[in-house]
Amino acid sequence: QTFSIASIPGDGIGGEVVAAGLRVLDTVAKLSGGAVDFDVTEFPWSSEYYLENGHYIPEGGLDQLQKHDAIYFGAVGSSDVADHTSLWGLRLAITQPFDQWANIRPVTFLPGVESPLRKADDTDLDWIVVRENSEGEYAGMGGRNLSGRGPGNEVALQTSLHTEKGCERIIRFAFDLARTRTTKKVSCVTKSNAQQFGMVLWDEVFARVAKDYPEVETESVLVDAMSAKFVLHPEDLSVVVASNLHADILSDLGSALAGSLGLAASANLNPERRFPSMFEPVHGSAPDIAGQGVSNPIGAISSASLMLDQFGLTAEAEEVRQAVSNVTEAGILPRDLGGDSTTVEVTEAIVTQLEAI
Amino acid sequence: QTFSIASIPGDGIGGEVVAAGLRVLDTVAKLSGGAVDFDVTEFPWSSEYYLENGHYIPEGGLDQLQKHDAIYFGAVGSSDVADHTSLWGLRLAITQPFDQWANIRPVTFLPGVESPLRKADDTDLDWIVVRENSEGEYAGMGGRNLSGRGPGNEVALQTSLHTEKGCERIIRFAFDLARTRTTKKVSCVTKSNAQQFGMVLWDEVFARVAKDYPEVETESVLVDAMSAKFVLHPEDLSVVVASNLHADILSDLGSALAGSLGLAASANLNPERRFPSMFEPVHGSAPDIAGQGVSNPIGAISSASLMLDQFGLTAEAEEVRQAVSNVTEAGILPRDLGGDSTTVEVTEAIVTQLEAI
Ligand SMILES: CC(C)[C@H](C(=O)O)[C@@H](O)C(=O)O
Ligand SMILES: CC(C)[C@H](C(=O)O)[C@@H](O)C(=O)O
Repeated sequence: QTFSIASIPGDGIGGEVVAAGLRVLDTVAKLSGGAVDFDVTEFPWSSEYYLENGHYIPEGGLDQLQKHDAIYFGAVGSSDVADHTSLWGLRLAITQPFDQWANIRPVTFLPGVESPLRKADDTDLDWIVVRENSEGEYAGMGGRNLSGRGPGNEVALQTSLHTEKGCERIIRFAFDLARTRTTKKVSCVTKSNAQQFGMVLWDEVFARVAKDYPEVETESVLVDAMSAKFVLHPEDLSVVVASNLHADILSDLGSALAGSLGLAASANLNPERRFPSMFEPVHGSAPDIAGQGVSNPIGAISSASLMLDQFGLTAEAEEVRQAVSNVTEAGILPRDLGGDSTTVEVTEAIVTQLEAI
Repeated sequence: QTFSIASIPGDGIGGEVVAAGLRVLDTVAKLSGGAVDFDVTEFPWSSEYYLENGHYIPEGGLDQLQKHDAIYFGAVGSSDVADHTSLWGLRLAITQPFDQWANIRPVTFLPGVESPLRKADDTDLDWIVVRENSEGEYAGMGGRNLSGRGPGNEVALQTSLHTEKGCERIIRFAFDLARTRTTKKVSCVTKSNAQQFGMVLWDEVFARVAKDYPEVETESVLVDAMSAKFVLHPEDLSVVVASNLHADILSDLGSALAGSLGLAASANLNPERRFPSMFEPVHGSAPDIAGQGVSNPIGAISSASLMLDQFGLTAEAEEVRQAVSNVTEAGILPRDLGGDSTTVEVTEAIVTQLEAI
């Protein structure tokens, strides 16, 4: 069986971590003895491409992506915050038209990686942030009143859009996921004590959907309290479902607690499979270390393991995760985890483990 | 000199922690030998009051508050998330009409209190979250389309309002505060790579205002990255300025990292002093432990010390903070910090320390 993958390395360290993930997928193919194959086409879209061409994706680009079974994405972004809006758009330019409405971000604590949290030493921590990925605070609605009110008097509005359908599908997704886990629990995150429209709709839909899953435990936690809970009681978490912005914040927080953003994997899923899904590490383009070969490939490699899951290659996915865990346990760590192994060294160690499993 | 204080205990543990803070203020008055006095009037507004009367504050209530030099607030809120919107409104019903646009929330690591962060053991951590408290995500603008689109098709909009004036005043406030600190640095938090209107305005105003403070170091960090930075590099923080929602999340995260939400103090300031400012612990009403006398009074007592600062009683404020720190250092800790001292025991220990300073 051949799976076709569109790879988009993007900016900064994107190229080296995508190469690492593809090296691991190659190994998976080789070890399958011909049963599985990956056919990879690279697309050169990036901030540089955007600056030269004035668009993220050329005409017909989405149609080309559409022909693939999955998209493997590196990172985009600039080191200059003032450039934000123009340079960071590539991710949304794919997730939104391809209706990749479910973003899953596992928070994984690996052996041999010291968590900043004391508690992680003697507690088994493992939870998943499920992020609404199609609307909410990222709806792009609003505007600025740049003139007409005189200098110093500008007003800007930014509108969050929550639809009942949008809430319902992501909440059901979270419950379906929770049902497959040892701890069958969904924590619902909102801020309905201060935002009385979309967040209250979300709470209402959550309460309604929860009735269909009597076997799943639930809790509703305000986003501020949830950020505290990640630190103080992470052992109570299993599946955490939240809006686009809340989950963006909570998933970065989760990765930091696990030791580094460089570890965190992410899948942007179109669960109906009408469009390809996209797999990407949570970390950014890290321009400060780009080109040095010292970035952490684990976020990208773990994202590739989520791609294998989606291809139905769950045994292979599990083996990749096991290989990663063996390597960190052996103390072969990149710089962000306090080690001195290069991107290639960490990747080759994972490949070696994989071959040995 | 007599300062008049309007106290609003509110719900749950609000009453016991406000009583603790007032006991400390009493001690400050007594120790001043008549130089300073506090005249306290209690207002019985709470969720219960709201449920009975249908409003948070009776007619003329704000005028009554207006006559005081400061407002001392306990906590409001319900244990039932479904009740959010109706029961949590008292705080905003005061901060908004009184234009308490600057909310400061120090993140204080106390001796004898174990931080969940390993790193806190050998690093001096101490930073302040400055929260925009008048607009942003809490503007209350938006609505729900409850009917007309058929069942399951509801749409809700929630609009964030950022004004140039609103951004500028809070950013200047942050710079003025940073200037008084040992580490003269302001970290600006936005999410302008995904929210292209208000957040970009905020970034632009920040860049402009920063030019007036060449002696203050600056950085701009996305809110997701900042939540990771709180965990991984808190030693780099001094003053963190953020929108209403971002700072709400970050300040709870900060308190959790310092050991407990029960420790965290907060001041809602109207810096022009046209209206009284309001001082309140960051924690909520904690209905689960209300009435048991085991709540942590430190958040409320530290909030009272911020009130003393605003009254110009900076030496007294410092003494209260010293007394608190002596008590935690001596291991006299309430339940949320792993101790077994009651609210009253912790408070009396602080009073004793204060008398001894
Ligand atoms: C009660 C709630 C509306 C409030 C807020 O978010 O402002 C609380 O979380 C706080 O931080 O004081
Ligand atoms: C680049 C940015 C828009 C993006 C987001 O917030 O979605 C990133 O932070 C992420 O989490 O993938």
